[in-house]
Amino acid sequence: MQRLDSGRLWADLMALGAITEPDRPYTRCSFSPLFDQGRVWLTRRMREADLVTHVDAGGNLLGRRAGKHPSWPALVVGSHSDSVPSGGRFDGMAGVIAGIGIARALSESGIELDHPLEIIDFLAEEPNEFGLSCIGSRAISGCLTAEQLRVKSPKGEMLAAAVGRVGGDPAKLPMAPRRDIGAAFELHIEQGPVLEREGLDIGVVTAIVGITRLEIEFQGTAGHAGTTPMQGRRDPLIAAAHMVGWVRETALQLASAGRGHFVATVGIIEALPGASNVIARSARIVIDARSEERGLMEEFRERLDAESCSAAQTAHVERSKLACLSDSLPAVCDAHLQSVLCENAQRLGLRARSLASGAGHDMAFISRVAPAAMVFIPCKDGRSHTPEEWATAEALTTGTELLLEAILQVDRTTASP
Amino acid sequence: MQRLDSGRLWADLMALGAITEPDRPYTRCSFSPLFDQGRVWLTRRMREADLVTHVDAGGNLLGRRAGKHPSWPALVVGSHSDSVPSGGRFDGMAGVIAGIGIARALSESGIELDHPLEIIDFLAEEPNEFGLSCIGSRAISGCLTAEQLRVKSPKGEMLAAAVGRVGGDPAKLPMAPRRDIGAAFELHIEQGPVLEREGLDIGVVTAIVGITRLEIEFQGTAGHAGTTPMQGRRDPLIAAAHMVGWVRETALQLASAGRGHFVATVGIIEALPGASNVIARSARIVIDARSEERGLMEEFRERLDAESCSAAQTAHVERSKLACLSDSLPAVCDAHLQSVLCENAQRLGLRARSLASGAGHDMAFISRVAPAAMVFIPCKDGRSHTPEEWATAEALTTGTELLLEAILQVDRTTASP
Repeated sequence: MQRLDSGRLWADLMALGAITEPDRPYTRCSFSPLFDQGRVWLTRRMREADLVTHVDAGGNLLGRRAGKHPSWPALVVGSHSDSVPSGGRFDGMAGVIAGIGIARALSESGIELDHPLEIIDFLAEEPNEFGLSCIGSRAISGCLTAEQLRVKSPKGEMLAAAVGRVGGDPAKLPMAPRRDIGAAFELHIEQGPVLEREGLDIGVVTAIVGITRLEIEFQGTAGHAGTTPMQGRRDPLIAAAHMVGWVRETALQLASAGRGHFVATVGIIEALPGASNVIARSARIVIDARSEERGLMEEFRERLDAESCSAAQTAHVERSKLACLSDSLPAVCDAHLQSVLCENAQRLGLRARSLASGAGHDMAFISRVAPAAMVFIPCKDGRSHTPEEWATAEALTTGTELLLEAILQVDRTTASP
Repeated sequence: MQRLDSGRLWADLMALGAITEPDRPYTRCSFSPLFDQGRVWLTRRMREADLVTHVDAGGNLLGRRAGKHPSWPALVVGSHSDSVPSGGRFDGMAGVIAGIGIARALSESGIELDHPLEIIDFLAEEPNEFGLSCIGSRAISGCLTAEQLRVKSPKGEMLAAAVGRVGGDPAKLPMAPRRDIGAAFELHIEQGPVLEREGLDIGVVTAIVGITRLEIEFQGTAGHAGTTPMQGRRDPLIAAAHMVGWVRETALQLASAGRGHFVATVGIIEALPGASNVIARSARIVIDARSEERGLMEEFRERLDAESCSAAQTAHVERSKLACLSDSLPAVCDAHLQSVLCENAQRLGLRARSLASGAGHDMAFISRVAPAAMVFIPCKDGRSHTPEEWATAEALTTGTELLLEAILQVDRTTASP
């Protein structure tokens, strides 16, 4: 068959990226007029690649080739076209453009698959005004609840109405989970430094981490920073600062235990009232912990609970809060699809490794209803969600080729239902 | 002589406290109409105690008794009548009321001192809209500079004009330092927990601490909290959190070294950008360190410098800033006046101890031009700068009596110039 056209893949990606708020590149947030404009462009490109397009009830844009057996489970390639404010041109878009590139290559080579092929632009993967990410992939996997659909944006629009506004069908929401997907693939930039640092072409994702956000608050006694002797102080910031170091040490330990990806970060710390001459009355940290192995997360939480109590005791303060702000389970990528990707990477002479995804992705939801897998390509300095986000045309082509080979193999080797 | 009238002292203090913003007790900020109202009341009380009142060029309200030798150096008793917003009824006011009580007792007993006696309400001791505390005592000690007098409030008023508005004389500012003060005393609530905790009546102040404010900033590399492995992170909050614990440990060490009062506090900590899912790019702490012994402060600063560099190295980040935001020298109280106070406390059967003042006071400036001393009385739970600030009528009377006895002794025993 015809090789993928690297130049067209790249030109498509840049053309989509150019649809941005001019004063705030690269911004094309879900539910915005620019998002609609991006979708008009994508719809045209999908049709030019001989895909039949429609928007499903959940607001996802689908481009479909029927294949020889239109009733067989579909092979899906998807990601998302929405961006964060002042984001990049790769996170999400690269995966949608790769899918269109694959459809175009098949069409131009005159190849008809046994299975239907679906290229999906999942709706609103990034955080948005409804405080909910992965809206489209949640809908497809039956995880978008009636309660979530009633959530209102700050402007007072209900999520269901916003989904309707991008072409979805609120009357058919919540959707029943789709059971007609045979395999789903997503290409994405790594958003981390590992592939670039190790000089690799490809990452085959083992799992998408579960994310647990925890808040710890310590309460002590505010006091005058000059007149309160050191002995007898009840300074809650001492306990909070201790936990910052402990979280790092413990995460390092768990990460090197050989039980899979584990990271934990304190990105928020606050002392109140926050004046230089006042001993704090309370101190708060927020911990973001991620693991591909639920057991590791449970161990971390237990140890965090015990350590924060002991830190409070040592500092003569009270641990007034240990709250779980959010908690999601890890999503394991399909083992067979992983091995198909690894084999094909080897066959194509690519330098590849397995790694977990530390960031959330639409495939975390799709994996609940279908075998799902992800391919990472390296990105410059591991940076993402910034205008400097960057991957090379070669990396994009390489990843797309691997996906195409994997789809051809799955199509060939998967028995009809 | 007649004993001090405890009931009148207390009634005066409560009457002055009642001059407050009604919706925000107890608030009588310097340069406000309520401050003027307080001064009208104080002027009347001073005159009733046979004091001759005037406002000096620096805006201080003075009530004077000439004594037998009007040209001899004056014995001063002073503090301040301004409050912080939502402050208490004791911080500052107790010292002014004590002075008026002493003048009244002398007058009603028909005692004429050898030296002139001056009761001073120093202008604007508390932080105010000009960002400068101790304005009146700075003026008297020749420390209020022409540059400071040109500072403008947010409303655009120049400090010199504001001093004029309360009765000062901008044309005579900056004042030459007064060299006609023989001894100066201030009674103040402790604003700390030591006297109450130890069941004491009186604290004789050894020194008013020097205050040094330092800011440390660490810079690392921002990153995705999920996709950046623990190994290789450059998280500046790790270094900042380490320093919080180190500051406490080191201050405890220095405080117990037997070289006088030392405290150090981190009341401000900040991680930027401050999002739960982002490894911070920079982290900042502000340290408030106070010592009555300059050597201790210098040792602390040297060790802080070294430790913060080493913490940066350990965390693979950069210590991008170690700035001195402000720095004042400790002010030592006059040794002779301290011993006069200690002797008289013993004679009166009071339980007293020496201790340093961890807070700044007008006497820190007055000590530059005259022998100065301070008497602390216990306050409830060590609290200050809050409406709950509290001391008992007994404590106020006891402290005032001690001051009166000390003044009588100094007057008797100090040779004419």
